[in-house]
Amino acid sequence: MGIHRLTLSDVLAEHRRSRPHETAVVDGSVRLTYPQLDTRVTKLANALAAQGVGPGDRVLWLGQNSYRVLELLLAAARLGAVFCPANWRQSADELAYVLDDLGPRVVAFEPSDAVAGARESRTAAHWVEDYEAFVAGGSDAEVPDDKDDRDPVLALYTAAFDGRPNAALLSHEALIAHSAALLQVRQVEPGFTFLNCGPLFHVGTMMFCLTTFLSGGKNVFTPAFDAEEVCRLIDAERCTQAFLFGQMIDALVAANAGGKYDLSSLRFVSHSPEWDAMITVDDSPWCSSKMGGYGQTEVGGMLTFLGLAPGAAGYAGRPSPFVQVRLLDAEGREVPDGEVGEICARGKSLFSGYHDRPELNARKSAGGWHHTGDLGRREPDGTLTFIGPKLRMIKSGNENIYPAEVERALKTHPAVADAAVIGVPDERWKQAVKAIVVLAEGRTATAEEIVEHVRGAIASYKKPRHVEFAGELPKKGFTPDYDALDARYGGGAYPGS
Amino acid sequence: MGIHRLTLSDVLAEHRRSRPHETAVVDGSVRLTYPQLDTRVTKLANALAAQGVGPGDRVLWLGQNSYRVLELLLAAARLGAVFCPANWRQSADELAYVLDDLGPRVVAFEPSDAVAGARESRTAAHWVEDYEAFVAGGSDAEVPDDKDDRDPVLALYTAAFDGRPNAALLSHEALIAHSAALLQVRQVEPGFTFLNCGPLFHVGTMMFCLTTFLSGGKNVFTPAFDAEEVCRLIDAERCTQAFLFGQMIDALVAANAGGKYDLSSLRFVSHSPEWDAMITVDDSPWCSSKMGGYGQTEVGGMLTFLGLAPGAAGYAGRPSPFVQVRLLDAEGREVPDGEVGEICARGKSLFSGYHDRPELNARKSAGGWHHTGDLGRREPDGTLTFIGPKLRMIKSGNENIYPAEVERALKTHPAVADAAVIGVPDERWKQAVKAIVVLAEGRTATAEEIVEHVRGAIASYKKPRHVEFAGELPKKGFTPDYDALDARYGGGAYPGS
Repeated sequence: MGIHRLTLSDVLAEHRRSRPHETAVVDGSVRLTYPQLDTRVTKLANALAAQGVGPGDRVLWLGQNSYRVLELLLAAARLGAVFCPANWRQSADELAYVLDDLGPRVVAFEPSDAVAGARESRTAAHWVEDYEAFVAGGSDAEVPDDKDDRDPVLALYTAAFDGRPNAALLSHEALIAHSAALLQVRQVEPGFTFLNCGPLFHVGTMMFCLTTFLSGGKNVFTPAFDAEEVCRLIDAERCTQAFLFGQMIDALVAANAGGKYDLSSLRFVSHSPEWDAMITVDDSPWCSSKMGGYGQTEVGGMLTFLGLAPGAAGYAGRPSPFVQVRLLDAEGREVPDGEVGEICARGKSLFSGYHDRPELNARKSAGGWHHTGDLGRREPDGTLTFIGPKLRMIKSGNENIYPAEVERALKTHPAVADAAVIGVPDERWKQAVKAIVVLAEGRTATAEEIVEHVRGAIASYKKPRHVEFAGELPKKGFTPDYDALDARYGGGAYPGS
Repeated sequence: MGIHRLTLSDVLAEHRRSRPHETAVVDGSVRLTYPQLDTRVTKLANALAAQGVGPGDRVLWLGQNSYRVLELLLAAARLGAVFCPANWRQSADELAYVLDDLGPRVVAFEPSDAVAGARESRTAAHWVEDYEAFVAGGSDAEVPDDKDDRDPVLALYTAAFDGRPNAALLSHEALIAHSAALLQVRQVEPGFTFLNCGPLFHVGTMMFCLTTFLSGGKNVFTPAFDAEEVCRLIDAERCTQAFLFGQMIDALVAANAGGKYDLSSLRFVSHSPEWDAMITVDDSPWCSSKMGGYGQTEVGGMLTFLGLAPGAAGYAGRPSPFVQVRLLDAEGREVPDGEVGEICARGKSLFSGYHDRPELNARKSAGGWHHTGDLGRREPDGTLTFIGPKLRMIKSGNENIYPAEVERALKTHPAVADAAVIGVPDERWKQAVKAIVVLAEGRTATAEEIVEHVRGAIASYKKPRHVEFAGELPKKGFTPDYDALDARYGGGAYPGS
């Protein structure tokens, strides 16, 4: 029937009709109503088309947060193209990788040394020097609204499985379905105003930017987090939501100690008595559950919400209404409740695979379920607990053992400050579990005590056969550096290796 | 990738996993958790399949409200089939028409004279005499979850354009998208409990039944509206929402005058001081706007919501986030703001056409937009006003004039109690507007005064050239009987006639 289509470009066209006076975008001195945004997006789309951008082509943004991110996304949507806001903080080398990997036809950017370095070696794309002149140069001709909402429209780099990131592709349909979940869980109402003060190349900010857009609300942009400026913007624009976490909130409380700014429009998570007195503590499922849940870029943002499962045993809560979740073993079978399996998902908000990674995509969607690469456990009340990244698996006898699960059990011992688990070659079992343990200051425990503790917490076959104590663990970001641990503590004989 | 599918059957399978102890269905002594419902739906699906029901086949329910309606819908969903709950109040003749038109493979029913009469003459289908025995006879074998969520799963009879109703087909995707809008606008939270006390063959009750199901909430069924029983059920099941309107609410207030039942769990629309004291007045957009908006079966229920446009000039408010709305003229062009046009829509919640009506479907979806057959006007703030059914058009000179718009203007005259507008043949303009006016008791007005009044309210060319006064108007339900009016007052020369 052709009457079911709904692209992000269509959403903008609808807002133009039904919200002629509503503000869509605020960024410094830039202030656009929905009709103004729609007009600019058409000009931008025509300017991009004049540079050869058509369906499936990529458009790249290298810069800080800006209304331009939303404009470029919507212009790409209008053309059936794919927009990528990349991490502008990366090195010239990393940016050059993105340019090679994504192969954008047009790059819009804010000048920096790294961008200049990357540009030097990659000249195939059209580089937009003067964004406003570029928009102004586009024609006003109407762009046909015949694009398929199942096609990708947004690419976000994530998931550096092999040291290099992959661009997750999200369709119009997936982004709208994910936004639908947030509309419910955050109880978005007319007039919703979101302050984009987290990075837009990250799904955590982008997902609320898009939800706000879908609801016909107001997106306020600020280049990066600055406590004083964030307070000023919340006050001036009567923001109802912002991208904020613990230390950022503390910084806002400090910046607004004298009550200079009125932050009462912000309906947000309770944090501290000072904070709660400044804002309006929100009782939507999203805020009252302190934004608990499980997510990743590949599912559009959040897959499960604690707010959909008040009183849940598992902190990840329950799935969004638009997805299914199963916990699968290495053979693709559902694991029994209470056992750890890989979190696998299916549904409307899921991504369309990674750009230009056919083999990885086939592996990630084996059996018709997206394999998140993360481990979870289903609790007796049906809710989910996120265990940790799957990363690697130890195979001892015929049993699959995930280091993250054993590490979690180790860390519940009061004397254990930190722990990592590797597999070491074993004559009888092929592999055996080895724990490297950092004791808490002033605490003692024997290897036997620690093994007994783990045996009491999870299935016996998962307990360490070897325990070594260390002063600290090598890390890669927040996770143990398993390659370094293997080298230092004799790891090896992993399945498939 | 095959990972985006989400059928109603998938939703049930997910609830089985993530809501093992939650109650899905209550109906008299029947009480089912989600796993119990899932098990029964599998048995029912296998029993239907044993009667030859496969993808695209129809299953019919002829009976009052019951948990069986939801079970049959979900079993059809599991098989890729289409379920239709028909109006069981119809005559034997009307039911025979539905049987002929829909051609169901299986009919489940509650005995009545009309059903017996219809059955006598239509014996091709398998008639389920004993529902529980039929379910019990189905196997427990897993049904493959490979159905397409864009296929129709629900058929609701509506839209009797030519005197006979048509079955609007709604896909899994459309029903889920429509539910998504209600999840937001009604602010559905965990534990949502809906009392199905309106007819489930009508979209107004069905849409909340499905939204409740999607949210993993509890659906309570009662055969039909009975004030005392509704009070009892709200109290006993702690219902949060029910299908209720003005006079039904008054009946509940009367039935609960002594405060016998605790209705405080009900979060509903404010109505009267007595009612407001019994329930919890809800401040969600849906309830605080008194459920205003515009809808029809063909859009899944509601197309626009007043709750999405607080303070709107147009009582229909703004579209759901998952649809677009345009007001089109007879040539498919958008009419200017302030002018009346046909409400046309596109988006995720729209139906998939009528069962077995290829020509009508082509006409209704001309140009890639669903033509609702209703008239609307866009107000200066972008919101929508519902004018009335299009029904027929008068063409005077080159101008299109819709009777509903002129009637609306006539009725704003203080002396006019009722009014209908027809087109009469006119030598110069081909057609001219004629108003038949019923004056309010004790009021007087001349034809000239009334014409002047209309001229002040809408475009001058739409004003009546002729006015006749009548004691009453012939009606068909709530709308004027235009054929009778044409015969009595000289109507004719309509475009296309």
